[in-house]
Amino acid sequence: MRISKSQLTLLRQLKLKKERDVRRMFLVEGWRGIAECRSAGVVPTLVAYDPRSNAPDHRNLLAEFERNGATVVEVGARDLNSIADTVHSQGIVAAITQRNMPEAKELLMNSRFVVVLDRITDPGNLGTILRTCDWFGIDLVLVSRGSVSIFNEKVVRSTVGSILRLNVLENIDPLDALSSAKEMKYDIFSTGMTGTDVRGAVHRGKFVLLLGNEAHGVDARLSSIADRLISIPKRGSGESLNVAVAAGIVLEHLVSFRA
Amino acid sequence: MRISKSQLTLLRQLKLKKERDVRRMFLVEGWRGIAECRSAGVVPTLVAYDPRSNAPDHRNLLAEFERNGATVVEVGARDLNSIADTVHSQGIVAAITQRNMPEAKELLMNSRFVVVLDRITDPGNLGTILRTCDWFGIDLVLVSRGSVSIFNEKVVRSTVGSILRLNVLENIDPLDALSSAKEMKYDIFSTGMTGTDVRGAVHRGKFVLLLGNEAHGVDARLSSIADRLISIPKRGSGESLNVAVAAGIVLEHLVSFRA
Repeated sequence: MRISKSQLTLLRQLKLKKERDVRRMFLVEGWRGIAECRSAGVVPTLVAYDPRSNAPDHRNLLAEFERNGATVVEVGARDLNSIADTVHSQGIVAAITQRNMPEAKELLMNSRFVVVLDRITDPGNLGTILRTCDWFGIDLVLVSRGSVSIFNEKVVRSTVGSILRLNVLENIDPLDALSSAKEMKYDIFSTGMTGTDVRGAVHRGKFVLLLGNEAHGVDARLSSIADRLISIPKRGSGESLNVAVAAGIVLEHLVSFRA
Repeated sequence: MRISKSQLTLLRQLKLKKERDVRRMFLVEGWRGIAECRSAGVVPTLVAYDPRSNAPDHRNLLAEFERNGATVVEVGARDLNSIADTVHSQGIVAAITQRNMPEAKELLMNSRFVVVLDRITDPGNLGTILRTCDWFGIDLVLVSRGSVSIFNEKVVRSTVGSILRLNVLENIDPLDALSSAKEMKYDIFSTGMTGTDVRGAVHRGKFVLLLGNEAHGVDARLSSIADRLISIPKRGSGESLNVAVAAGIVLEHLVSFRA
Protein backbone atom coordinates (compact mmCIF):
# COMPACT_ATOMS: atom_id res chain seq x y z
CA MET A 1 0.00 0.00 0.00
CA ARG A 2 1.19 3.54 -0.81
CA ILE A 3 1.80 5.99 1.99
CA SER A 4 -1.12 8.36 2.68
CA LYS A 5 -0.84 12.11 3.03
CA SER A 6 -1.54 11.99 6.75
CA GLN A 7 1.07 9.25 7.28
CA LEU A 8 3.64 11.33 5.40
CA THR A 9 2.75 14.37 7.48
CA LEU A 10 3.08 12.37 10.70
CA LEU A 11 6.55 11.11 9.77
CA ARG A 12 7.70 14.62 8.81
CA GLN A 13 6.38 16.09 12.03
CA LEU A 14 8.28 13.58 14.14
CA LYS A 15 11.48 15.41 13.25
CA LEU A 16 10.34 18.12 15.69
CA LYS A 17 10.74 17.62 19.45
CA LYS A 18 7.44 19.37 20.14
CA GLU A 19 5.54 16.96 17.90
CA ARG A 20 7.37 13.93 19.32
CA ASP A 21 6.38 15.04 22.82
CA VAL A 22 2.71 15.50 21.85
CA ARG A 23 2.38 12.33 19.79
CA ARG A 24 4.61 10.23 22.07
CA MET A 25 6.43 8.77 19.06
CA PHE A 26 9.89 9.01 17.48
CA LEU A 27 11.68 8.02 14.26
CA VAL A 28 14.11 5.23 13.54
CA GLU A 29 15.90 5.42 10.18
CA GLY A 30 17.62 2.95 7.88
CA TRP A 31 17.58 -0.83 7.61
CA ARG A 32 20.09 -1.07 10.41
CA GLY A 33 17.79 0.88 12.73
CA ILE A 34 14.87 -1.35 11.74
CA ALA A 35 16.90 -4.49 12.43
CA GLU A 36 17.68 -3.06 15.88
CA CYS A 37 13.92 -2.83 16.54
CA ARG A 38 13.61 -6.56 15.86
CA SER A 39 16.58 -7.36 18.15
CA ALA A 40 15.02 -5.27 20.90
CA GLY A 41 11.58 -6.87 20.42
CA VAL A 42 10.01 -3.53 19.48
CA VAL A 43 7.28 -3.43 16.81
CA PRO A 44 7.14 -0.05 15.01
CA THR A 45 3.73 1.59 14.74
CA LEU A 46 4.29 2.73 11.13
CA VAL A 47 6.97 1.59 8.66
CA ALA A 48 7.49 3.41 5.34
CA TYR A 49 9.97 1.85 2.90
CA ASP A 50 11.12 2.41 -0.66
CA PRO A 51 10.37 -0.85 -2.56
CA ARG A 52 13.38 -0.21 -4.80
CA SER A 53 15.67 -0.20 -1.80
CA ASN A 54 17.07 -3.55 -0.82
CA ALA A 55 18.38 -5.08 2.33
CA PRO A 56 19.13 -8.70 3.21
CA ASP A 57 16.06 -10.49 4.54
CA HIS A 58 13.94 -7.34 4.34
CA ARG A 59 10.77 -9.05 3.15
CA ASN A 60 10.79 -11.34 6.18
CA LEU A 61 11.42 -8.44 8.50
CA LEU A 62 8.54 -6.36 7.14
CA ALA A 63 6.15 -9.34 7.09
CA GLU A 64 7.03 -10.09 10.69
CA PHE A 65 6.33 -6.52 11.80
CA GLU A 66 3.02 -6.56 9.89
CA ARG A 67 1.96 -9.79 11.59
CA ASN A 68 2.72 -8.13 14.91
CA GLY A 69 0.55 -5.10 14.24
CA ALA A 70 2.75 -2.62 12.35
CA THR A 71 1.31 -0.63 9.45
CA VAL A 72 3.76 -1.10 6.54
CA VAL A 73 3.51 1.26 3.55
CA GLU A 74 5.54 2.01 0.43
CA VAL A 75 7.08 5.42 -0.12
CA GLY A 76 9.00 6.96 -3.04
CA ALA A 77 12.64 7.98 -2.68
CA ARG A 78 11.75 11.67 -2.90
CA ASP A 79 9.18 11.59 -0.12
CA LEU A 80 11.49 9.44 1.95
CA ASN A 81 14.27 12.00 1.64
CA SER A 82 11.89 14.69 2.82
CA ILE A 83 11.46 12.71 6.05
CA ALA A 84 14.81 11.21 6.79
CA ASP A 85 18.26 12.72 7.27
CA THR A 86 19.26 12.63 3.60
CA VAL A 87 22.67 11.15 4.23
CA HIS A 88 21.26 8.29 6.24
CA SER A 89 17.92 7.59 4.59
CA GLN A 90 18.68 4.04 3.58
CA GLY A 91 15.34 3.20 2.07
CA ILE A 92 13.26 2.97 5.21
CA VAL A 93 11.96 4.95 8.17
CA ALA A 94 9.75 3.86 11.06
CA ALA A 95 7.67 5.61 13.70
CA ILE A 96 8.01 4.01 17.11
CA THR A 97 5.60 4.68 19.95
CA GLN A 98 7.39 5.81 23.11
CA ARG A 99 7.02 3.51 26.08
CA ASN A 100 4.89 4.73 28.95
CA MET A 101 7.28 5.34 31.79
CA PRO A 102 6.54 5.81 35.49
CA GLU A 103 7.77 9.01 37.14
CA ALA A 104 11.42 9.50 38.06
CA LYS A 105 10.78 8.96 41.77
CA GLU A 106 9.04 5.63 41.22
CA LEU A 107 11.77 4.48 38.84
CA LEU A 108 14.43 5.47 41.38
CA MET A 109 12.73 3.29 43.99
CA ASN A 110 13.10 0.25 41.75
CA SER A 111 16.68 0.78 40.51
CA ARG A 112 20.19 0.16 41.74
CA PHE A 113 22.47 1.73 39.12
CA VAL A 114 21.43 5.17 37.90
CA VAL A 115 22.99 7.83 35.64
CA VAL A 116 21.86 11.48 35.73
CA LEU A 117 22.85 13.65 32.76
CA ASP A 118 22.87 17.42 33.18
CA ARG A 119 22.68 19.48 29.95
CA ILE A 120 24.48 17.16 27.54
CA THR A 121 24.19 19.09 24.27
CA ASP A 122 25.97 17.01 21.62
CA PRO A 123 23.71 14.32 20.09
CA GLY A 124 26.62 11.96 19.46
CA ASN A 125 27.74 12.25 23.07
CA LEU A 126 24.26 11.63 24.46
CA GLY A 127 23.67 8.65 22.16
CA THR A 128 27.06 7.15 23.01
CA ILE A 129 26.44 7.56 26.74
CA LEU A 130 23.07 5.78 26.43
CA ARG A 131 24.73 2.95 24.44
CA THR A 132 27.38 2.65 27.17
CA CYS A 133 24.75 2.62 29.95
CA ASP A 134 22.92 -0.19 28.12
CA TRP A 135 26.14 -2.24 27.87
CA PHE A 136 26.87 -1.86 31.57
CA GLY A 137 23.33 -2.67 32.68
CA ILE A 138 22.43 0.74 34.09
CA ASP A 139 18.83 0.46 35.35
CA LEU A 140 17.80 4.07 34.77
CA VAL A 141 19.07 7.17 32.96
CA LEU A 142 17.59 10.57 33.85
CA VAL A 143 18.23 13.37 31.33
CA SER A 144 17.80 16.97 32.45
CA ARG A 145 15.95 19.81 30.82
CA GLY A 146 18.36 21.70 28.56
CA SER A 147 19.88 18.51 27.15
CA VAL A 148 19.48 17.49 23.54
CA SER A 149 16.32 15.41 23.07
CA ILE A 150 16.81 11.66 23.57
CA PHE A 151 14.64 11.05 20.47
CA ASN A 152 16.66 13.37 18.19
CA GLU A 153 17.60 11.31 15.09
CA LYS A 154 21.34 11.59 15.67
CA VAL A 155 20.93 10.52 19.29
CA VAL A 156 18.78 7.56 18.28
CA ARG A 157 21.33 6.52 15.64
CA SER A 158 24.27 6.81 18.07
CA THR A 159 22.56 4.60 20.63
CA VAL A 160 22.66 1.70 18.10
CA GLY A 161 19.36 0.35 19.44
CA SER A 162 19.90 1.07 23.14
CA ILE A 163 17.19 3.75 23.10
CA LEU A 164 14.72 0.87 22.52
CA ARG A 165 15.82 -1.03 25.62
CA LEU A 166 17.00 1.41 28.27
CA ASN A 167 14.85 3.02 30.94
CA VAL A 168 15.48 6.65 30.09
CA LEU A 169 13.45 9.70 31.05
CA GLU A 170 14.02 13.21 29.72
CA ASN A 171 13.05 16.76 30.80
CA ILE A 172 13.72 15.89 34.42
CA ASP A 173 14.78 18.33 37.14
CA PRO A 174 18.21 17.04 38.23
CA LEU A 175 18.02 18.78 41.61
CA ASP A 176 14.76 16.95 42.42
CA ALA A 177 16.15 13.64 41.17
CA LEU A 178 19.32 13.90 43.24
CA SER A 179 17.40 14.92 46.35
CA SER A 180 15.13 11.88 45.98
CA ALA A 181 18.12 9.63 45.35
CA LYS A 182 19.80 10.96 48.47
CA GLU A 183 16.75 10.15 50.58
CA MET A 184 16.76 6.65 49.12
CA LYS A 185 20.36 6.09 50.29
CA TYR A 186 22.00 6.05 46.88
CA ASP A 187 25.73 6.79 46.88
CA ILE A 188 25.99 9.82 44.61
CA PHE A 189 29.12 10.34 42.51
CA SER A 190 30.06 13.17 40.23
CA THR A 191 33.14 13.69 38.08
CA GLY A 192 35.65 16.49 38.53
CA MET A 193 39.31 17.38 38.19
CA THR A 194 40.03 17.22 41.92
CA GLY A 195 38.18 14.08 43.02
CA THR A 196 39.58 10.80 44.25
CA ASP A 197 40.95 8.29 41.76
CA VAL A 198 38.16 6.32 40.08
CA ARG A 199 40.05 3.14 41.12
CA GLY A 200 39.20 3.91 44.73
CA ALA A 201 35.47 4.43 44.13
CA VAL A 202 33.36 2.24 46.41
CA HIS A 203 29.59 2.12 46.92
CA ARG A 204 27.02 0.14 48.87
CA GLY A 205 25.32 -1.47 45.88
CA LYS A 206 23.19 1.51 44.83
CA PHE A 207 24.73 4.46 43.04
CA VAL A 208 23.93 7.53 40.99
CA LEU A 209 26.59 8.85 38.60
CA LEU A 210 26.07 12.51 37.69
CA LEU A 211 27.62 13.77 34.45
CA GLY A 212 27.58 17.38 33.29
CA ASN A 213 27.71 19.63 30.27
CA GLU A 214 30.57 19.16 27.79
CA ALA A 215 31.94 22.69 28.20
CA HIS A 216 30.96 23.62 31.73
CA GLY A 217 31.05 20.31 33.59
CA VAL A 218 28.74 19.51 36.48
CA ASP A 219 26.70 22.40 37.91
CA ALA A 220 28.02 23.44 41.33
CA ARG A 221 24.57 23.22 42.96
CA LEU A 222 24.30 19.65 41.76
CA SER A 223 27.81 18.48 42.58
CA SER A 224 27.36 19.80 46.13
CA ILE A 225 24.70 17.11 46.60
CA ALA A 226 27.09 14.40 45.45
CA ASP A 227 28.82 12.44 48.21
CA ARG A 228 31.94 11.74 46.24
CA LEU A 229 33.88 13.49 43.53
CA ILE A 230 35.65 11.06 41.18
CA SER A 231 38.48 11.89 38.82
CA ILE A 232 40.31 9.94 36.16
CA PRO A 233 44.01 10.57 36.70
CA LYS A 234 45.80 12.29 33.83
CA ARG A 235 49.11 10.76 32.84
CA GLY A 236 49.73 12.93 29.77
CA SER A 237 48.38 16.28 28.57
CA GLY A 238 45.04 17.73 27.54
CA GLU A 239 42.45 19.66 29.47
CA SER A 240 39.77 17.01 29.65
CA LEU A 241 38.33 13.75 28.39
CA ASN A 242 35.25 13.51 26.18
CA VAL A 243 32.20 13.12 28.45
CA ALA A 244 31.13 9.79 26.90
CA VAL A 245 34.64 8.36 27.31
CA ALA A 246 34.72 9.54 30.93
CA ALA A 247 31.28 7.97 31.48
CA GLY A 248 32.54 4.65 30.14
CA ILE A 249 35.63 4.61 32.33
CA VAL A 250 33.79 5.53 35.52
CA LEU A 251 30.87 3.15 34.88
CA GLU A 252 33.18 0.24 34.17
CA HIS A 253 34.66 0.74 37.64
CA LEU A 254 31.37 1.34 39.45
CA VAL A 255 29.53 -1.67 38.00
CA SER A 256 32.54 -3.96 38.59
CA PHE A 257 32.81 -2.98 42.24
CA ARG A 258 31.45 -5.50 44.71
CA ALA A 259 30.85 -4.22 48.21
CA MET B 1 46.97 43.35 5.97
CA ARG B 2 44.30 41.85 3.69
CA ILE B 3 44.56 38.22 2.66
CA SER B 4 46.15 37.68 -0.77
CA LYS B 5 44.71 35.48 -3.50
CA SER B 6 47.42 32.88 -3.07
CA GLN B 7 46.90 32.76 0.70
CA LEU B 8 43.17 32.26 0.19
CA THR B 9 43.87 29.51 -2.33
CA LEU B 10 46.25 27.79 0.07
CA LEU B 11 43.70 27.80 2.88
CA ARG B 12 40.98 26.45 0.60
CA GLN B 13 43.24 23.70 -0.72
CA LEU B 14 44.06 22.51 2.79
CA LYS B 15 40.53 21.13 3.00
CA LEU B 16 41.73 18.33 0.69
CA LYS B 17 43.80 15.46 2.06
CA LYS B 18 45.92 15.33 -1.10
CA GLU B 19 46.92 18.98 -0.72
CA ARG B 20 47.57 18.59 3.01
CA ASP B 21 49.89 15.68 2.26
CA VAL B 22 51.79 17.63 -0.42
CA ARG B 23 52.05 20.90 1.49
CA ARG B 24 52.55 19.22 4.89
CA MET B 25 50.06 21.61 6.51
CA PHE B 26 46.56 21.42 7.99
CA LEU B 27 43.79 23.76 9.18
CA VAL B 28 42.68 24.73 12.66
CA GLU B 29 39.37 26.61 12.88
CA GLY B 30 37.75 28.95 15.37
CA TRP B 31 39.09 30.99 18.30
CA ARG B 32 38.98 27.92 20.47
CA GLY B 33 41.24 26.04 18.06
CA ILE B 34 43.61 29.01 17.94
CA ALA B 35 43.76 29.17 21.74
CA GLU B 36 44.65 25.47 21.75
CA CYS B 37 47.64 26.27 19.52
CA ARG B 38 48.91 28.71 22.16
CA SER B 39 48.39 26.15 24.96
CA ALA B 40 50.32 23.57 22.95
CA GLY B 41 53.12 26.03 22.13
CA VAL B 42 52.44 25.77 18.40
CA VAL B 43 52.81 28.87 16.22
CA PRO B 44 50.59 28.74 13.11
CA THR B 45 52.24 29.48 9.77
CA LEU B 46 49.33 31.58 8.49
CA VAL B 47 46.41 33.06 10.45
CA ALA B 48 43.39 34.61 8.66
CA TYR B 49 40.79 36.35 10.83
CA ASP B 50 37.68 38.45 10.36
CA PRO B 51 38.39 41.78 12.13
CA ARG B 52 34.67 42.11 12.91
CA SER B 53 34.74 38.86 14.83
CA ASN B 54 35.60 39.16 18.47
CA ALA B 55 37.06 36.89 21.07
CA PRO B 56 38.41 37.63 24.55
CA ASP B 57 42.07 38.62 24.44
CA HIS B 58 42.27 38.08 20.69
CA ARG B 59 44.53 41.05 19.98
CA ASN B 60 47.15 39.74 22.39
CA LEU B 61 46.92 36.27 20.94
CA LEU B 62 47.42 37.45 17.36
CA ALA B 63 50.24 39.82 18.31
CA GLU B 64 51.99 37.00 20.13
CA PHE B 65 51.76 34.69 17.11
CA GLU B 66 53.05 37.48 14.86
CA ARG B 67 56.06 38.08 17.13
CA ASN B 68 56.80 34.37 16.92
CA GLY B 69 56.80 34.28 13.13
CA ALA B 70 53.17 33.75 12.07
CA THR B 71 51.77 35.65 9.10
CA VAL B 72 48.52 37.25 10.31
CA VAL B 73 46.06 38.59 7.72
CA GLU B 74 42.50 39.93 7.67
CA VAL B 75 39.76 38.16 5.76
CA GLY B 76 36.09 38.99 5.08
CA ALA B 77 33.28 36.82 6.44
CA ARG B 78 32.40 35.56 2.97
CA ASP B 79 35.89 34.39 2.07
CA LEU B 80 36.25 32.90 5.53
CA ASN B 81 33.08 30.86 5.05
CA SER B 82 34.46 29.55 1.78
CA ILE B 83 37.41 28.12 3.72
CA ALA B 84 35.98 26.96 7.00
CA ASP B 85 33.19 24.53 7.89
CA THR B 86 30.38 27.09 7.81
CA VAL B 87 28.83 26.01 11.06
CA HIS B 88 32.09 26.32 12.90
CA SER B 89 33.81 29.24 11.18
CA GLN B 90 34.07 31.40 14.26
CA GLY B 91 35.93 34.30 12.72
CA ILE B 92 39.34 32.72 12.31
CA VAL B 93 41.23 29.95 10.59
CA ALA B 94 44.93 29.03 10.73
CA ALA B 95 47.26 26.89 8.67
CA ILE B 96 49.62 24.81 10.81
CA THR B 97 52.75 23.18 9.45
CA GLN B 98 52.85 19.45 10.21
CA ARG B 99 55.72 18.33 12.41
CA ASN B 100 58.45 16.29 10.79
CA MET B 101 58.14 12.82 12.24
CA PRO B 102 60.63 9.97 12.17
CA GLU B 103 59.48 6.66 10.68
CA ALA B 104 57.18 4.30 12.58
CA LYS B 105 60.01 1.88 13.36
CA GLU B 106 62.21 4.55 14.89
CA LEU B 107 59.30 5.95 16.91
CA LEU B 108 58.47 2.46 18.16
CA MET B 109 62.02 2.06 19.41
CA ASN B 110 61.62 5.13 21.60
CA SER B 111 58.13 4.52 22.99
CA ARG B 112 56.54 2.49 25.74
CA PHE B 113 52.79 2.95 25.31
CA VAL B 114 51.52 2.67 21.74
CA VAL B 115 48.07 2.60 20.10
CA VAL B 116 47.55 1.22 16.57
CA LEU B 117 44.29 2.15 14.83
CA ASP B 118 43.08 0.03 11.93
CA ARG B 119 40.56 1.67 9.57
CA ILE B 120 38.75 4.00 11.95
CA THR B 121 36.34 5.78 9.62
CA ASP B 122 34.31 8.19 11.77
CA PRO B 123 36.08 11.55 12.29
CA GLY B 124 34.53 12.07 15.74
CA ASN B 125 35.69 8.64 16.86
CA LEU B 126 39.24 9.16 15.61
CA GLY B 127 39.48 12.63 17.18
CA THR B 128 38.10 11.38 20.48
CA ILE B 129 40.55 8.46 20.54
CA LEU B 130 43.48 10.85 19.95
CA ARG B 131 42.20 13.13 22.74
CA THR B 132 41.99 10.11 25.06
CA CYS B 133 45.50 8.93 24.11
CA ASP B 134 46.84 12.40 24.91
CA TRP B 135 45.15 12.36 28.34
CA PHE B 136 46.63 8.97 29.21
CA GLY B 137 50.14 9.82 28.01
CA ILE B 138 50.30 7.41 25.08
CA ASP B 139 53.72 7.92 23.47
CA LEU B 140 52.75 7.06 19.91
CA VAL B 141 49.60 6.53 17.81
CA LEU B 142 49.89 4.77 14.45
CA VAL B 143 46.92 5.19 12.11
CA SER B 144 46.48 2.74 9.23
CA ARG B 145 45.79 3.39 5.59
CA GLY B 146 42.03 3.37 5.04
CA SER B 147 41.32 5.41 8.16
CA VAL B 148 39.90 8.93 8.02
CA SER B 149 42.72 11.49 7.74
CA ILE B 150 44.07 12.70 11.09
CA PHE B 151 44.08 16.27 9.73
CA ASN B 152 40.43 16.20 8.60
CA GLU B 153 38.76 19.29 10.16
CA LYS B 154 36.29 17.27 12.22
CA VAL B 155 39.06 15.05 13.53
CA VAL B 156 41.17 18.10 14.44
CA ARG B 157 38.21 19.70 16.22
CA SER B 158 37.37 16.51 18.17
CA THR B 159 40.94 16.20 19.44
CA VAL B 160 40.52 19.53 21.29
CA GLY B 161 44.19 20.37 20.73
CA SER B 162 45.65 16.90 21.18
CA ILE B 163 46.56 16.70 17.49
CA LEU B 164 49.10 19.46 18.23
CA ARG B 165 50.84 17.49 20.98
CA LEU B 166 50.58 13.77 20.25
CA ASN B 167 53.06 11.73 18.27
CA VAL B 168 50.73 10.44 15.60
CA LEU B 169 51.59 8.98 12.20
CA GLU B 170 49.05 8.15 9.49
CA ASN B 171 49.03 5.98 6.33
CA ILE B 172 50.98 3.26 8.13
CA ASP B 173 50.85 -0.45 7.33
CA PRO B 174 49.50 -2.02 10.55
CA LEU B 175 50.94 -5.45 9.75
CA ASP B 176 54.44 -3.96 9.46
CA ALA B 177 53.98 -1.93 12.62
CA LEU B 178 52.79 -4.91 14.67
CA SER B 179 55.59 -7.12 13.37
CA SER B 180 58.16 -4.51 14.38
CA ALA B 181 56.52 -4.09 17.77
CA LYS B 182 56.60 -7.84 18.31
CA GLU B 183 60.34 -7.95 17.60
CA MET B 184 60.80 -5.11 20.08
CA LYS B 185 59.11 -7.14 22.84
CA TYR B 186 55.96 -5.09 23.15
CA ASP B 187 52.98 -6.85 24.72
CA ILE B 188 50.32 -6.60 22.01
CA PHE B 189 46.66 -6.38 22.99
CA SER B 190 43.59 -6.28 20.86
CA THR B 191 39.93 -6.02 21.79
CA GLY B 192 37.30 -8.65 21.10
CA MET B 193 34.14 -10.20 22.46
CA THR B 194 35.84 -13.36 23.72
CA GLY B 195 39.00 -12.02 25.38
CA THR B 196 39.95 -11.97 29.03
CA ASP B 197 38.47 -9.31 31.31
CA VAL B 198 40.28 -5.97 30.93
CA ARG B 199 40.73 -6.01 34.74
CA GLY B 200 43.13 -8.91 34.37
CA ALA B 201 45.28 -7.26 31.68
CA VAL B 202 48.95 -7.21 32.63
CA HIS B 203 52.02 -6.12 30.67
CA ARG B 204 55.76 -5.77 31.13
CA GLY B 205 55.86 -1.97 30.82
CA LYS B 206 55.66 -1.74 27.03
CA PHE B 207 52.38 -2.31 25.23
CA VAL B 208 50.59 -1.86 21.94
CA LEU B 209 46.78 -1.60 21.95
CA LEU B 210 45.25 -2.44 18.57
CA LEU B 211 41.77 -1.05 17.83
CA GLY B 212 39.76 -1.86 14.72
CA ASN B 213 37.07 -0.59 12.41
CA GLU B 214 33.73 0.53 13.94
CA ALA B 215 31.64 -2.01 12.03
CA HIS B 216 34.04 -4.89 11.40
CA GLY B 217 36.32 -4.81 14.45
CA VAL B 218 39.96 -5.83 14.33
CA ASP B 219 41.14 -7.54 11.15
CA ALA B 220 41.78 -11.26 11.76
CA ARG B 221 45.30 -11.14 10.26
CA LEU B 222 46.15 -8.37 12.71
CA SER B 223 44.55 -9.82 15.81
CA SER B 224 46.41 -13.09 15.22
CA ILE B 225 49.64 -11.16 15.90
CA ALA B 226 48.29 -9.87 19.20
CA ASP B 227 49.38 -11.76 22.31
CA ARG B 228 46.24 -11.08 24.26
CA LEU B 229 42.62 -10.52 23.46
CA ILE B 230 40.91 -8.17 25.94
CA SER B 231 37.20 -7.77 26.46
CA ILE B 232 35.07 -5.43 28.52
CA PRO B 233 32.47 -7.56 30.29
CA LYS B 234 28.86 -6.79 29.38
CA ARG B 235 26.49 -6.55 32.30
CA GLY B 236 23.44 -5.38 30.33
CA SER B 237 22.44 -5.51 26.68
CA GLY B 238 23.69 -4.11 23.39
CA GLU B 239 25.95 -5.57 20.75
CA SER B 240 29.00 -3.43 21.33
CA LEU B 241 30.56 -0.34 22.83
CA ASN B 242 31.60 2.70 20.81
CA VAL B 243 35.26 2.26 19.82
CA ALA B 244 36.40 5.49 21.52
CA VAL B 245 34.67 4.51 24.76
CA ALA B 246 36.25 1.03 24.59
CA ALA B 247 39.64 2.66 23.96
CA GLY B 248 39.23 4.84 27.05
CA ILE B 249 38.27 1.93 29.30
CA VAL B 250 41.10 -0.33 28.14
CA LEU B 251 43.74 2.42 28.19
CA GLU B 252 42.78 3.49 31.70
CA HIS B 253 43.52 -0.06 32.86
CA LEU B 254 46.70 -0.52 30.84
CA VAL B 255 48.35 2.76 31.86
CA SER B 256 47.40 2.24 35.53
CA PHE B 257 48.92 -1.23 35.64
CA ARG B 258 52.30 -1.46 37.34
CA ALA B 259 54.27 -4.62 36.68
